[in-house]
Amino acid sequence: MSDSIRMKLDEVHELATTLLLAQGFNQAHANAIANTVTAAERDECRHHGLFRIPFYVNALRAGQASGDAEPTVDDLAPAVIRVDAHYGFSPLALEVGDELLAKRAQETGIAALAVNNALNVAALWPEVERLANRGLVAFAFVAAAPYVAPHGGTKPLYGTNPMAFAWPRLNHPPMVFDQASSASARGEIQVRLRDGKPLPEGWAVGPDGKPTTDPKAALAGAQLPFGGVKGASIAMMVELLAGPLIGDLLSYEAGEKDAANTGAPCGGELIIAIDPVRCLKNGNRKAQLEHGEQLFSKILEQEGTRLPSQRRYEARGRTVVEGVTVPKSLYDTLKLFSTGTYVRQENAYEGDDLLRGKPAKAAV
Amino acid sequence: MSDSIRMKLDEVHELATTLLLAQGFNQAHANAIANTVTAAERDECRHHGLFRIPFYVNALRAGQASGDAEPTVDDLAPAVIRVDAHYGFSPLALEVGDELLAKRAQETGIAALAVNNALNVAALWPEVERLANRGLVAFAFVAAAPYVAPHGGTKPLYGTNPMAFAWPRLNHPPMVFDQASSASARGEIQVRLRDGKPLPEGWAVGPDGKPTTDPKAALAGAQLPFGGVKGASIAMMVELLAGPLIGDLLSYEAGEKDAANTGAPCGGELIIAIDPVRCLKNGNRKAQLEHGEQLFSKILEQEGTRLPSQRRYEARGRTVVEGVTVPKSLYDTLKLFSTGTYVRQENAYEGDDLLRGKPAKAAV
Repeated sequence: MSDSIRMKLDEVHELATTLLLAQGFNQAHANAIANTVTAAERDECRHHGLFRIPFYVNALRAGQASGDAEPTVDDLAPAVIRVDAHYGFSPLALEVGDELLAKRAQETGIAALAVNNALNVAALWPEVERLANRGLVAFAFVAAAPYVAPHGGTKPLYGTNPMAFAWPRLNHPPMVFDQASSASARGEIQVRLRDGKPLPEGWAVGPDGKPTTDPKAALAGAQLPFGGVKGASIAMMVELLAGPLIGDLLSYEAGEKDAANTGAPCGGELIIAIDPVRCLKNGNRKAQLEHGEQLFSKILEQEGTRLPSQRRYEARGRTVVEGVTVPKSLYDTLKLFSTGTYVRQENAYEGDDLLRGKPAKAAV
Repeated sequence: MSDSIRMKLDEVHELATTLLLAQGFNQAHANAIANTVTAAERDECRHHGLFRIPFYVNALRAGQASGDAEPTVDDLAPAVIRVDAHYGFSPLALEVGDELLAKRAQETGIAALAVNNALNVAALWPEVERLANRGLVAFAFVAAAPYVAPHGGTKPLYGTNPMAFAWPRLNHPPMVFDQASSASARGEIQVRLRDGKPLPEGWAVGPDGKPTTDPKAALAGAQLPFGGVKGASIAMMVELLAGPLIGDLLSYEAGEKDAANTGAPCGGELIIAIDPVRCLKNGNRKAQLEHGEQLFSKILEQEGTRLPSQRRYEARGRTVVEGVTVPKSLYDTLKLFSTGTYVRQENAYEGDDLLRGKPAKAAV
């Protein structure tokens, strides 16, 4: 018997929707989350795919997330829109906000969307890619639970604070990057702990504040920003943009608020969209995009290079035809969910076990 | 006899203005450049202080910079302004644009300023600090001559591509960072070449594409982005924002255009300003800034930390009272300039000699 199941993408979407509904999300949320989960499976970003479902469900069961909150929209300024998620997960809030933001950016040239009171456990590339598919340049910034030390410090303060950026392309899907401002994802440390492997230097300090390559010490200590002081500046910038700028929580406040330790922090997201043609005097959008292509050609003519989003798009090309592979252990766990049964997953490390075909530890 | 001269800040400004005028800049440009140079001396950013004057003059003498171009303003969209510098240096264009941008951001919540056809050899922190002094959050992005390889590649393509960010503070000057997306400044490599010292690993590859710690090989090869693939993403983003987005040159195009190799590349700068209070539903600016202060307190309560702009502000506190120290060799060279005599400085390495008290190599 095979250790994995092959599923078409619409089957992934249907499975996700069904079990989110069974766990208590309403149709709009279940559908929006399923869209995000399916997009992640499609691009082989498995940590944001079906594997994430338990995070969504945990936060709902813990009473920290709303399964039926309807996002509301405020017009804060001619070029600033706010979507209040009212403690629902972000995918639905983003579906509401994206379209308004795109329209506004086309009108004013540049516009911002503040998403407040949203639970976010998804990647950021879907929202910036959607905006770039409308011809816009887009940025997204999110803060989260406190895991990362400030520069020179040794205690957790910042989230892994990802930022994403997208640039529309001619005859290609957008160029997109979506990167944490920490040196590594937290899950990468957890996986090394399980596998008994040391960390590369520069990822973390232990509880004593000294650099460590021991995963256990790293998890008890603090992760480090990528790229030293410069990466730390980016982390701080993201913290300010996703928090105080839009009247939402700092990472450490979000951490304090996640009393049930669901790993689904509540907070803000800032998205900025620019209509590139509105930044030109001559209004020649085609020449502008060709200019961008000129840069990409110059990058790709060097051996050993690729564009940030290239692997995801290659995966997408395969999976829309062939479907995706889902570990049977994950599939079986999720099937339990669809009957209303609930398996509490403590952290990404256990989730990773599911991804690798081990059974879930405990069913509650 | 002392190797250095002590000058009050208004003397620095007067000296800079006098010699820029003597070399052919008009009053408006001389004054704007002197403002930038004086601000750098004040904050002890010496590589952007009086030391930079020869770069401004070289580009003027080579016919690449205009000494009297009047910046013109275009309204591109409700939230996008453009200033065309018409091949003048950027300080004057920025003085014109800053105020318009601030006003626009206050009206629309977020706004962008595209500066085109500007020669830029200054730091970016002055413009974002000015905007933050008006209560705005600000970003600036500039591309330049090609020195840095894309991720995975080994040939120069990107500029050192700095980005700056400023956040307004309560009862403090703004929090500002201004950082290259390369692992090091080019001048730091040049100084190590002169001093016969090896480079830290990760700064550069040689002409053979292999990692090198030899400064000479590094200068003939390519610098590397900071922080691996993530820093390279930032470098690429800056390249797109300061180039194609605003209809200006990519770094390699700017390099091709600098035929006289003046080290004063011509190109674009993108500045984005956000009025933070327009991103809040409750409109409480004081609470918002206090929230930012809460983050800064949490950073600073950890031993070993400081905020990015702290050293500059400490220097400023000293120099506004005590004045600054200028190496006599630099002072004497600049005095020659003020009579209309011209000393061609080949690169920042020679400029650094001046800073360290060695005489200029050749007077033309």
